[in-house]
Amino acid sequence: MSRRLPTAPEFIAGIRAGNRVVLGQAITLVESARPEHQALAREIIAQLLNAAGNDPSHVTGTIRNPPSAIRIAITGAPGVGKSTFIEALGMYLVEQGKKVAVLAVDPTSSVSKGSILGDKTRMERLSASEQAFIRPSPSGESLGGVARKTRETILLVEAAGYDTVLIETVGVGQSEITVHSMTDVFLLLLLPGAGDELQGIKRGIVEMADILAVNKADGDRVKLANQARAYYLNATHLLAPKTSGWTPRVLTCSSQENTGIAEIWHAIVEYQQSTLENGFFTENRRRQAEYWFREALDAGLKAAFFSHPAVQARLSELEPEVLAGRVSPFAAAEIVLKEFEL
Amino acid sequence: MSRRLPTAPEFIAGIRAGNRVVLGQAITLVESARPEHQALAREIIAQLLNAAGNDPSHVTGTIRNPPSAIRIAITGAPGVGKSTFIEALGMYLVEQGKKVAVLAVDPTSSVSKGSILGDKTRMERLSASEQAFIRPSPSGESLGGVARKTRETILLVEAAGYDTVLIETVGVGQSEITVHSMTDVFLLLLLPGAGDELQGIKRGIVEMADILAVNKADGDRVKLANQARAYYLNATHLLAPKTSGWTPRVLTCSSQENTGIAEIWHAIVEYQQSTLENGFFTENRRRQAEYWFREALDAGLKAAFFSHPAVQARLSELEPEVLAGRVSPFAAAEIVLKEFEL
Repeated sequence: MSRRLPTAPEFIAGIRAGNRVVLGQAITLVESARPEHQALAREIIAQLLNAAGNDPSHVTGTIRNPPSAIRIAITGAPGVGKSTFIEALGMYLVEQGKKVAVLAVDPTSSVSKGSILGDKTRMERLSASEQAFIRPSPSGESLGGVARKTRETILLVEAAGYDTVLIETVGVGQSEITVHSMTDVFLLLLLPGAGDELQGIKRGIVEMADILAVNKADGDRVKLANQARAYYLNATHLLAPKTSGWTPRVLTCSSQENTGIAEIWHAIVEYQQSTLENGFFTENRRRQAEYWFREALDAGLKAAFFSHPAVQARLSELEPEVLAGRVSPFAAAEIVLKEFEL
Repeated sequence: MSRRLPTAPEFIAGIRAGNRVVLGQAITLVESARPEHQALAREIIAQLLNAAGNDPSHVTGTIRNPPSAIRIAITGAPGVGKSTFIEALGMYLVEQGKKVAVLAVDPTSSVSKGSILGDKTRMERLSASEQAFIRPSPSGESLGGVARKTRETILLVEAAGYDTVLIETVGVGQSEITVHSMTDVFLLLLLPGAGDELQGIKRGIVEMADILAVNKADGDRVKLANQARAYYLNATHLLAPKTSGWTPRVLTCSSQENTGIAEIWHAIVEYQQSTLENGFFTENRRRQAEYWFREALDAGLKAAFFSHPAVQARLSELEPEVLAGRVSPFAAAEIVLKEFEL
């Protein structure tokens, strides 16, 4: 049992062979703050993406059916039963022969609030399956850091052969928008009965959803679930048409009784086929890659600028003058930018 | 009649003496795209801000009463009567001995949609007053460009002795947020009768307002105006308390019959006194200066980066690879950033 890190070719061979231990180690590299780990992670991902074995058909526009993988965002307010739902959907997919990766984006998890997916016992059957790979949210200072790590992890699990990537998010803020920018389809789980103002869901999140599913439609909650379904069906009709050309589906399900799960999966497949046909799926992935490219350039540029010693010196000298109104912000910015040899 | 541009000392002397022609020329420098004009504008503003005659009391926290100038945002949906209202409020202030500058932020004006304030005939009396200075919106490719020019113009008109700066904006989008970030108080004009969904006003704009005034409260519209006042009074009660500690005032007025104008001015004065006392006024100006400093740094950094020839070459080489999914956005960003010697 050597503690030596595998080499890049060993990582690549292991990931391609579907070795879960090697895959887990590679994700740990992506999540690591150490520069040598980051460099190795980049090398691995670059080679996996460039490899002939990789199928970028869904990206380049050459539509093969089905594309190599689908990335599904799953969100909903706390208490809606996301873990139980993911267990039910994941097991359904495993039974269909799919290979399912479950990731999470939860920037609060490092603040000890109890990470989503941290407790694998909530997905007991799925985590025992050989066809499933579950990874809790990376911890990170910022949503930006967590997002970047998750996006690279998606590439790794896809290279390892997982064809269905479920990305869970907490459902209460900015992280939904982030996950929306790295997934193909957006699934919002809802509780029986209450409208979105009572479920603590922001209107913008309802607008992002491609599929809305009222969970816990079982026992004496069936009637309430149908009421919620009618409410959201009406709400989605009032929304502006989506650029994907897709009309959001509103469904009910019970993760406990395992009802409605197949219908949700069929809606996802239908969504994928429809958007592959009209070109939106491909165009969306291109736009997402562009977005992350711009974000990475922006973050790198700012990091280099604000860590530059001469910039820092000028900043600490000029900032008080700007705040006190003695120097124009624009003139001060010009002086600081000069220190960066611009 | 020489066409020679005045020198920086001539500009400064002219502006301090309240010479409107020189002030107008200085604003033209701020609005110019020519680098030598920009440099001269920066020199003028830097010297005006640094001068002993400038009173930064409202900024540094040493409260004198009244502070040198107040910056007032005035917005509302098209058709609400902004120009007529500004004429009425401006004339009221001129009669009180105030010196009033009227600026506008309208990023659409360059797209020939008919600039607000472009037609001074809508403010006939005010534009004839020696105590008033009216300047239409600078044209500009982007809201960012227009905003920067307007913020520098505020400094110039204040240096020329204008103690009340009214900044008009179109009321239909992002420009309100921009104007909010450069003013002390936010005044929203409303039409009699209809709620905000019918007035085309975004909820976020209602939330920014410190004073809401139902205009056109005259003739048979008085009853409708009072209904609107009651509606918005209720709406503002439902909003979260403001960090300024101020409870928004909801008033009615008629610009044509000149009623309610004094009451609106008194509410503005009351707002200013209240926020000077609790420190918000000063803190808000500091935060605004900080915001514009960061914006200017960001814009300058990006402009230098994306105009760098080696960066451009790498970008055009790598971007197609990123979009096609063959190269990770993060790896590509790293390569491009290296070209900038980062």
